[in-house]
Amino acid sequence: MVKALTFDTGGTILDWHGGISRAFANAGARRGLERDWAAITNEYRAASLKAMVNAGADAPATFNIDDVHREKLDEMIARHDLGALTDADRHDIWRAWHELDCWPDFPAAQAQMRADFIVASFTILSVSLIIDTAKRNGLSWDAVFSCEMIGKYKLLPFTYQQVARWLVLDPGEIMMVACHNIDLNAARQVGYKTAFVRRPTEWGKAGPPDPSPDAHHDIIADDYPDLVRKLARFREA
Amino acid sequence: MVKALTFDTGGTILDWHGGISRAFANAGARRGLERDWAAITNEYRAASLKAMVNAGADAPATFNIDDVHREKLDEMIARHDLGALTDADRHDIWRAWHELDCWPDFPAAQAQMRADFIVASFTILSVSLIIDTAKRNGLSWDAVFSCEMIGKYKLLPFTYQQVARWLVLDPGEIMMVACHNIDLNAARQVGYKTAFVRRPTEWGKAGPPDPSPDAHHDIIADDYPDLVRKLARFREA
Repeated sequence: MVKALTFDTGGTILDWHGGISRAFANAGARRGLERDWAAITNEYRAASLKAMVNAGADAPATFNIDDVHREKLDEMIARHDLGALTDADRHDIWRAWHELDCWPDFPAAQAQMRADFIVASFTILSVSLIIDTAKRNGLSWDAVFSCEMIGKYKLLPFTYQQVARWLVLDPGEIMMVACHNIDLNAARQVGYKTAFVRRPTEWGKAGPPDPSPDAHHDIIADDYPDLVRKLARFREA
Repeated sequence: MVKALTFDTGGTILDWHGGISRAFANAGARRGLERDWAAITNEYRAASLKAMVNAGADAPATFNIDDVHREKLDEMIARHDLGALTDADRHDIWRAWHELDCWPDFPAAQAQMRADFIVASFTILSVSLIIDTAKRNGLSWDAVFSCEMIGKYKLLPFTYQQVARWLVLDPGEIMMVACHNIDLNAARQVGYKTAFVRRPTEWGKAGPPDPSPDAHHDIIADDYPDLVRKLARFREA
């Protein structure tokens, strides 16, 4: 019996591509810069993910995603000849991570799911990023499990085990929800149930690098209303 | 400017005395035991607090409050000749910690405060205890900061500093709320603002051991509606 749903949050809940590409475009327009902002945004996200995933394997990570977002922004600026962006422009782009919109079909679904399950954020994003975006979007998480609190990051098995320990649940009583197979499969290895929710515009027009759910997931949902329906059927089964 | 309110939760929000003394009385009645359940409950709470406060100073604590509640329950049973309580009785009393009611004036006040502040639980109680009692009482915390996640416990200064780091706030932007001077004063030492909320029945008819707020707190409130009013005035000042 599943008692808790743990949600990957960047991409699965928050539209980082929309928010960050707009922040780049706005800053660029102020400085007369024309670039493929959507492509730069995706490159920026990919570089940030690469720096964060599996961090802390040997010793607790001494940085969080906000640190990484600031550092990788400077790399993007150097790589794409964006030196005209001022310190204030850079700050605006960096802060845009804390001002992301969530997918519009999530808030109502979250309220419905909270009636039946513990609904927690389980994320590589920072504690304060999750709090800020929840406030902005009217979300209420039953708990925020940021890997920042663990000192180790997904996809390390320890992180999924730690969340299960904090919830005092067997991994099989927890369902990881994400739009990425990689996160779900790491959770599944530890014994979690898994739900794949399609987010075809997560990476903008380029489309997600990993759009097709593996067949072994317990639930495959087209959107959040569909997840709510399929969770009800899953509980009855 | 205060941006976050961090709430001590046992006693300040949750009526442990009422819930645990009822659980003792119910179990005792089943076994024909007559004792001063209110006094035993207070002794049980005091022993549990003593075991938990400042834990983890040298190395991360390897136990949480649920472990302590189980262990101290056995001590109370031995000390008060309660051997007639069955394993199921003991389990019921132990689980009653996760089924505590909150003070009836808190839920509406929490919703009001969340409109203006980050409203977080900051507690020596376990993550799952806070989630369970929030679900039961219809509470929504913006975050749960259990000392279980830190591996060190209040009153250690590190715990207050860690919560400030996670919130990315200066300590002076955080207000600790509690019905205990000892917790508020530890937070104040680190730079937090402090609000004392009176909970005269926290320890039942015996009355709290530390009922009188120190004069230096930024806010002294008679109840949660009073706290909401005084926070509004504090923001305007």
